[in-house]
Amino acid sequence: MCNRKVYMFITVYDKNITFKVQHTLGFLSQKNYDSHIIYSIQSDGMAQKKEHQLPDILATDIVAKSGLFTVESLDLKFSNGEQRKYERIKGGGRGAVMIVPLLDDDTLLLVREYCAGTHDYQLGFPKGLIDPGENAMQAGNRELKEEAGFGAKELVELKQVSLAPSYFNAKMHILLAEQLFTESLLGDEPEPLEVVRWPISQWQELLTQEDFTEARSVAALFLAKEHLASRAK
Amino acid sequence: MCNRKVYMFITVYDKNITFKVQHTLGFLSQKNYDSHIIYSIQSDGMAQKKEHQLPDILATDIVAKSGLFTVESLDLKFSNGEQRKYERIKGGGRGAVMIVPLLDDDTLLLVREYCAGTHDYQLGFPKGLIDPGENAMQAGNRELKEEAGFGAKELVELKQVSLAPSYFNAKMHILLAEQLFTESLLGDEPEPLEVVRWPISQWQELLTQEDFTEARSVAALFLAKEHLASRAK
Repeated sequence: MCNRKVYMFITVYDKNITFKVQHTLGFLSQKNYDSHIIYSIQSDGMAQKKEHQLPDILATDIVAKSGLFTVESLDLKFSNGEQRKYERIKGGGRGAVMIVPLLDDDTLLLVREYCAGTHDYQLGFPKGLIDPGENAMQAGNRELKEEAGFGAKELVELKQVSLAPSYFNAKMHILLAEQLFTESLLGDEPEPLEVVRWPISQWQELLTQEDFTEARSVAALFLAKEHLASRAK
Repeated sequence: MCNRKVYMFITVYDKNITFKVQHTLGFLSQKNYDSHIIYSIQSDGMAQKKEHQLPDILATDIVAKSGLFTVESLDLKFSNGEQRKYERIKGGGRGAVMIVPLLDDDTLLLVREYCAGTHDYQLGFPKGLIDPGENAMQAGNRELKEEAGFGAKELVELKQVSLAPSYFNAKMHILLAEQLFTESLLGDEPEPLEVVRWPISQWQELLTQEDFTEARSVAALFLAKEHLASRAK
C-alpha cells in the first residue's frame, strides 16, 4: 500500500457527479493510492480555474548551449512530494509577433519561406521576433514591411499564444493588420519571400494545403476569421 | 551597384498587376538590386504553389546536446547563391498527437497541467509523443487514457500541424475522439492532471482564458468546431 497522497482535481456538472466519482475511485483503487479528492461542483457547466500550487524549483542548471538555444534543466518538487528533473529551452523573453494582413475585405496575405527545421518551404503568415525597444505593434509593422512589402495603419491584437509551454517560454502576439500601404524594408532573409494572396472565403482550401501546417498560422487564420465575422454582425 | 540577383515570386490578380509591379520595382530600386521578376498571374484569385529550389545543405554539425534536445547547425547555400548558417532542434521523428475528446455533443474534455517552459499551469487538450510501435490513433487513445481517464471508440484525424518549422521538425496529429468510455492508464505525470469539462457552445470563453494559450490547442479547438459544424450540415 502506497502512502503518497494523490490530489485529484475534478470539474463536474451536478448531473454527472456520481459517474465521475465512480470513475475517479476506479482510477485510484487501481493504483492503490490513498486519495484526497477535491471536487469542484458547478451547475452552469462552465469550468472554473483551480488554484494549483506550483512545484518548487530546487535547482537550475544550463546543460547545453548553442548560438541560438540554451537548454536549462530544472529540479522540481511537486506539491505532492514527487521530484522530477525537467528540461526547457530558455527564451529570449521579448516574445514574437505574427501578422494576419488583410489587403481588402476578402484578401489575406501570406508568405512562403524556407524553414530549416523541416527543410522545406512553408506557407504561413509573416512573423518574427520583437526587437529591443519595440512593442508588439511596432514589431508587427516592421515584419510586415520586411516580409510582405506592406505597412499597416491599423493593427489589433487577436490573442497571445504560446508555442509548446512544456518546453518553451515563447509568447507570440497574433495581430490583425488592416489599411495596408506599400512600403518595404530589407530584413535578414537570405532570399525574398514569395508573397501569396489568398481569399478568406477560401479558407478551407488554405487549411488543406500541404505546406500550410504551422499551428500558429492555423490558429491565426481562425482567430482572424472569427474576429471579422463578429465585427460584421 | 550590387550584382546579386533577386528572385521575386509574386502572386497577383490580373486586376492588380500594375499596382503590384510598381511596388516590386520600388522595393528593388530602393536596394539597387538587379532584378529577375517571376510573375504568377491568376484570374481566379487562388494562389498556386510555386516550385522553390531547396537550399543545398553544405554541412551539418551537432553543436549542443542535452538529455532531451539536440541542436544541429546547417550550412546552407540558397539557390541565389546566398550562404547562411542556421540552427535547428533535431526531432525524434515519430511525431506527437493531440486529442480533442468529445464527451457528448456539447462537452469537450481538457486537462490543466504544469508546464516547465512557462512555469505555470496551462489548460489544453491531452497530448503526447507517439511511442515506438504505435500509430497516431493508438498513441491518441493511450494519451487520452493516461491524461483524462477515457478511451475512445472513434478517432478521426482533423489535421497534421507543425510546431515552428523554422526551428523544429515536430509534427503533431490533431485527432477528434468520440464515443468515449472510462478507462485509465497511469502515465509518467508527476501528479494527476485536472480534467476540465467545457461546453463547445462556450468556445469563445475558452479562448479568453488566460491559461488557454497553446497555439496547437487553439488550432485544435477551431478545427474540431468546424468539423462538427460541417458534419451537422
